[in-house]
Amino acid sequence: MSNCYVGIDLGGTNIAGGVASEDGCLLRTASAPTRSEEGPEAILARIAELGAELAQGRLLGLGVGVPGLVDTASGVTKFLPNLPTQWRDVAAGEYLRSKLGCPVRLLNDCRTAALGELQFGAGRNYRDLALFMIGTGIGGGVILDGQVRLGALGAAGELGHQTILPDGPLCGCGNRGCLETLASGPAIAGEGVRLMRSGLAPKLFELTAGNAEAVTPKSMAEAARLGDRAVEASIARIAGYLGIGVANVIVTVHPQLVVIGGGVAAMGDLLLEPLRRTVKDRVGMLPPETVAIEPSPLGDQSGIYGAVALAMTARE
Amino acid sequence: MSNCYVGIDLGGTNIAGGVASEDGCLLRTASAPTRSEEGPEAILARIAELGAELAQGRLLGLGVGVPGLVDTASGVTKFLPNLPTQWRDVAAGEYLRSKLGCPVRLLNDCRTAALGELQFGAGRNYRDLALFMIGTGIGGGVILDGQVRLGALGAAGELGHQTILPDGPLCGCGNRGCLETLASGPAIAGEGVRLMRSGLAPKLFELTAGNAEAVTPKSMAEAARLGDRAVEASIARIAGYLGIGVANVIVTVHPQLVVIGGGVAAMGDLLLEPLRRTVKDRVGMLPPETVAIEPSPLGDQSGIYGAVALAMTARE
Repeated sequence: MSNCYVGIDLGGTNIAGGVASEDGCLLRTASAPTRSEEGPEAILARIAELGAELAQGRLLGLGVGVPGLVDTASGVTKFLPNLPTQWRDVAAGEYLRSKLGCPVRLLNDCRTAALGELQFGAGRNYRDLALFMIGTGIGGGVILDGQVRLGALGAAGELGHQTILPDGPLCGCGNRGCLETLASGPAIAGEGVRLMRSGLAPKLFELTAGNAEAVTPKSMAEAARLGDRAVEASIARIAGYLGIGVANVIVTVHPQLVVIGGGVAAMGDLLLEPLRRTVKDRVGMLPPETVAIEPSPLGDQSGIYGAVALAMTARE
Repeated sequence: MSNCYVGIDLGGTNIAGGVASEDGCLLRTASAPTRSEEGPEAILARIAELGAELAQGRLLGLGVGVPGLVDTASGVTKFLPNLPTQWRDVAAGEYLRSKLGCPVRLLNDCRTAALGELQFGAGRNYRDLALFMIGTGIGGGVILDGQVRLGALGAAGELGHQTILPDGPLCGCGNRGCLETLASGPAIAGEGVRLMRSGLAPKLFELTAGNAEAVTPKSMAEAARLGDRAVEASIARIAGYLGIGVANVIVTVHPQLVVIGGGVAAMGDLLLEPLRRTVKDRVGMLPPETVAIEPSPLGDQSGIYGAVALAMTARE
């Protein structure tokens, strides 16, 4: 039997896991429901079970991406806003280590995804990257000289909480005008609903049968491709906000690569072209062409790939 | 004779230098005119001369802070916008090494000042800091885990070129609404002139005899203390822009410390209090009290202290 790593991505709905060979080839994935209302004990038991099921041969390390903040040194969870029960000060790392008998590392899911991009994704040929993970919110991760930047609380890399419009919309974090309020999945879909109900998006209306529930970044991208100019213009405007967030990160740490991940990245060039244009227009202090801006190639599996990359650092 | 380090701060008007003992005690400073119109050859000769004059005993390293971009690995200057003659691709490091017979390191002056804060200033008890250097422009430097973040071109840390107002004033870098356009010395003084000429700043008028030339951040701070409420409110609004720039850096890299340096920092609590309040209001993703925000204690000599700190890394 050979050696392996297991990576687990803990989400609000599902626990997704993968097992990789010692040299990092993903061999198999599997998942289990989170059932978040059952609380930490049941969920951690389910993670341990999934890990044991996935493991083939000797388990060298377990990595777990969690939706929130965790004390990375101790493996104690701190603040998991998307899981309804109380996760403050749960010794998750210790529990999983005792159950699975291997080194365990826990980290915020977006920082974990950034490690995945570095190891397996868009960042394979780079030493630095900034990941913007655009979904229900906008998370992120910053890797410099091959090391994920954590800060004292593992909270560095919250790229969606840069202020883009000082008097902008209220954000869940308490601030106003965060990038997340302007360019997250819900922000984009909200704009799509506005356009559709204002009669400015006939193709989007056709595609969704006028149902707001079906208005998503994906259906909006399709409508724009079919000729909804107002939708296309809105996407470009939103991409401009993203471009400001990207440009701010570039002047601050000048990474070699910026990766756009999460469901919204599937909008492709409709989003990426105006984003790149904004960066080119706004970054004047260094040559903007020194920073590549790429969509994540890992798609839905970026969480699993990240957790496997995290597992590989757990061993060190 | 003992060993020493020499640090040189190359400015548009003066070349300031200092010599420090092997353990980093500043022993003596001296300066020479830049005479920037004379071009690289004459200026580098003057730097070498000043360095030789300052050196006491064996020179272990020379550090030179330069106003612009330099290839730090080779010591070749790239872009020095504030010196009028052509500095592109001047092998300054090699020349100074041959003249002074010691390891030489060149670095952007604000990144150099950040090293000075870490070694000798507000950052002595920290491993991370972000420096906002507020003068004619706003420069900066980011130090993470004890290392200055350079990026491929030594251009990381341009914290004054974050976009704060997407449709704001035109910046020298080509962008709009950079922090530098809103909170640099000239931006603050411009607002003071507006208030004075609009009859809203009687104390400032008294202090300056109504002469716009005498309106500076310093005279404005004095006017605010004497009772000019409009001046005080303007300073607070400008400090709010700075606070947004600081908050963006905090969510991105979560440094332990933010240092406010440059002439404008002399405004003290008039600037720092509203700045700190803004950070507290806008940073919701991590406890803002985990980041200290302090004025630079090095004042006018931050460039020299920085260059000495740079010299001490040249030896390594």
